[in-house]
Amino acid sequence: MAHDPVSAAVRQLVTKNDTKIVLLVMDGVGGMRTLEHPTSELEEARTPNLDKWARRGSLGRVLPAARGITVGSGPGHLALFGYNPLLPEHEIGRGVLEVAGIDFAMPAGAVAARGNFATLDASGNIVDRRAGRLATEEAKPVLAKMQAAVAAPIDGVTVRVLPVKEYRFALVFEGPGLGAELYDTDPQKTGVPSLEPRARRDTPENARMVAVAAKAIALMRAAIKDEPKANGFNLRGFAQDPGLETFEQRFGLRAAAIATYPLYRGVARLCGMNVVETGTTIADEFRTLRQIWNDYDFFFLHVKKTDAMGEDGNRAGKIMIIEDTDRAMMALDELKPDVLVVTGDHSTPPPMKAHSFHPVPFLLASALCDIDAGQRFTEGECDKGSLGVFPSCEIMQLALGHAGRLLKFGS
Amino acid sequence: MAHDPVSAAVRQLVTKNDTKIVLLVMDGVGGMRTLEHPTSELEEARTPNLDKWARRGSLGRVLPAARGITVGSGPGHLALFGYNPLLPEHEIGRGVLEVAGIDFAMPAGAVAARGNFATLDASGNIVDRRAGRLATEEAKPVLAKMQAAVAAPIDGVTVRVLPVKEYRFALVFEGPGLGAELYDTDPQKTGVPSLEPRARRDTPENARMVAVAAKAIALMRAAIKDEPKANGFNLRGFAQDPGLETFEQRFGLRAAAIATYPLYRGVARLCGMNVVETGTTIADEFRTLRQIWNDYDFFFLHVKKTDAMGEDGNRAGKIMIIEDTDRAMMALDELKPDVLVVTGDHSTPPPMKAHSFHPVPFLLASALCDIDAGQRFTEGECDKGSLGVFPSCEIMQLALGHAGRLLKFGS
Repeated sequence: MAHDPVSAAVRQLVTKNDTKIVLLVMDGVGGMRTLEHPTSELEEARTPNLDKWARRGSLGRVLPAARGITVGSGPGHLALFGYNPLLPEHEIGRGVLEVAGIDFAMPAGAVAARGNFATLDASGNIVDRRAGRLATEEAKPVLAKMQAAVAAPIDGVTVRVLPVKEYRFALVFEGPGLGAELYDTDPQKTGVPSLEPRARRDTPENARMVAVAAKAIALMRAAIKDEPKANGFNLRGFAQDPGLETFEQRFGLRAAAIATYPLYRGVARLCGMNVVETGTTIADEFRTLRQIWNDYDFFFLHVKKTDAMGEDGNRAGKIMIIEDTDRAMMALDELKPDVLVVTGDHSTPPPMKAHSFHPVPFLLASALCDIDAGQRFTEGECDKGSLGVFPSCEIMQLALGHAGRLLKFGS
Repeated sequence: MAHDPVSAAVRQLVTKNDTKIVLLVMDGVGGMRTLEHPTSELEEARTPNLDKWARRGSLGRVLPAARGITVGSGPGHLALFGYNPLLPEHEIGRGVLEVAGIDFAMPAGAVAARGNFATLDASGNIVDRRAGRLATEEAKPVLAKMQAAVAAPIDGVTVRVLPVKEYRFALVFEGPGLGAELYDTDPQKTGVPSLEPRARRDTPENARMVAVAAKAIALMRAAIKDEPKANGFNLRGFAQDPGLETFEQRFGLRAAAIATYPLYRGVARLCGMNVVETGTTIADEFRTLRQIWNDYDFFFLHVKKTDAMGEDGNRAGKIMIIEDTDRAMMALDELKPDVLVVTGDHSTPPPMKAHSFHPVPFLLASALCDIDAGQRFTEGECDKGSLGVFPSCEIMQLALGHAGRLLKFGS
């Protein structure tokens, strides 16, 4: 497997001990200070626990992918987990990310594709690429008809039709000898029919997948042809599990993922983490952390709503979620992780109502920290930290170093 | 074309909109605070306009090539334009840089070489490798004789003899099927004759170039054999246009270059920028910026004299140029660029009287800036910024991000 020299060195130096590492990800936590509003949510929030860890820790800022680049949640988390998301071997295809996002574990060798319902006219041309933004409930019976149409395996391949949300669904093709290098069937415009599945590269595996997809599409289309809105669909992002090295292989860590949203569980699963059951609140997640504390070396704990509030432009809401998280962090006083990392997968500044490219505040606390000038987990204090601005995919190696889990390089 | 993963990702994410980006380069602007003189020129200059942009912007420092490495103007500007100057595919050969420096546009496939006049003794051995530092005016008639000697094409190749400065000139060989992998004919010492042209690698194109060069050299030497000082010459840095991807291909930007010195126009031209006519002063350059404002997306504006003053060790002069630039920047209040970047291609600290490796102060202002603690465009305030220290070749992607010209990476 291709590796940059840093990852290769880290892998070679990894050793095991009985330390515990916690990676607390507050999704989209980074903010943006503006002339109109010169303080960020992290600055305004009352965060006695974060402050305490910041005072005894080292601070900096992390870049999810590279300067100026805004990442989605998939690449943002891959980077936090130590996998450079810009390397082709770490690419998670859209189809795989989509089924990861509905908590569906991809069988080995299976191919996933994302589906969008579309409305077709009498001659089969697309008139609406989102089928009138079909509601989730409306989609259910249509998906059931599609699943019934492909109940029998096609050329030895089982087809699963999985609901996602509104007009979106996913297909998973499970069977031997399948390739995933297929073009989308979505023509990306209206007034034309959907495209037929076609291989991007000429291999027996891709040809087999094209044949199976074509048959499945024909059966499913026939089954829904009389639907008023969802009488057609387009498939995008055919992909297979990228077969990432596991956390155990890469870092020698038994890793657990605690997340309330399926996408984050899905990405953690692709990295070989054990996804554990938890509740719906931040407090639930920390309770779960306490319950599984003795069973793992590494704990990824994901807080979703900081991002959601940022995307809504809801400053007060984002502050509230930060304060909720801070309160729940009291559990850590008792658990005493050897290394605590707090950061985000990207910034989501409320003024932008979107993910952004701004470097994300970063905090690492351990007994080996160089206590720097940064006193709080905020944008401004992280700028004063001793860690500088560095790529998110180097966080894991830094955490391993602080955990005493990396041998000396050379003598 | 070979690409690092970051450039590859950037290229894939580039999108277009109607934003305007200004890259203001103050050549050699970075200084050096010493124990004897603890303030830099940027700190001492009165710069109300720069201060204003700094207060509403984000600050940091940039590394032209890599830590500890001092760059020349060619690589320094390539980096600012987003081309990592350390990658072999971005190498601009000395010959090409030399003709770029006299505003000569290389024809496709042509080979350029730098020439140095030399004084030879009666037996043809070099006695002075700079021909007594021949003055520019003295060189002119000698160069005319050389051009006359190669007035007719040689094996279908046209040879142009171009004056540069003092004992320096350039040759451009234009014709089909030429290679440029030739050793210098400069033996780098006196008491021996010039070397014959010889290929570094055995290819038909290089062999053809060797043959043409040998004939041209013989004709030109014969024409100047009776000159008192400039009766010989050495050729160095045979090179072809590296065929860089253009700014338009790489970043989707219609780019204009405004520079008073030919070298900077030349490097910009190699990157596919449109080099526009301007006057001789900083105020002229900003007037030009105003005139062409509606015709381009990206504007490179180059201020030369900060570097010249630094190389002279002239602190007061450098302060004056910085203040002149600041005054001219008032034009920007009216033009309102969406993204303004101010930096240098390298540092030229007056105490060193030379280019240096010190990270260069960097300022980016846009509506999406995280307003950080840095309050002025100075070494000290840039150290307090939120952008950290980063490679100059990442400036373009940061500017594109701030201009909303990069799509989100992954979902």
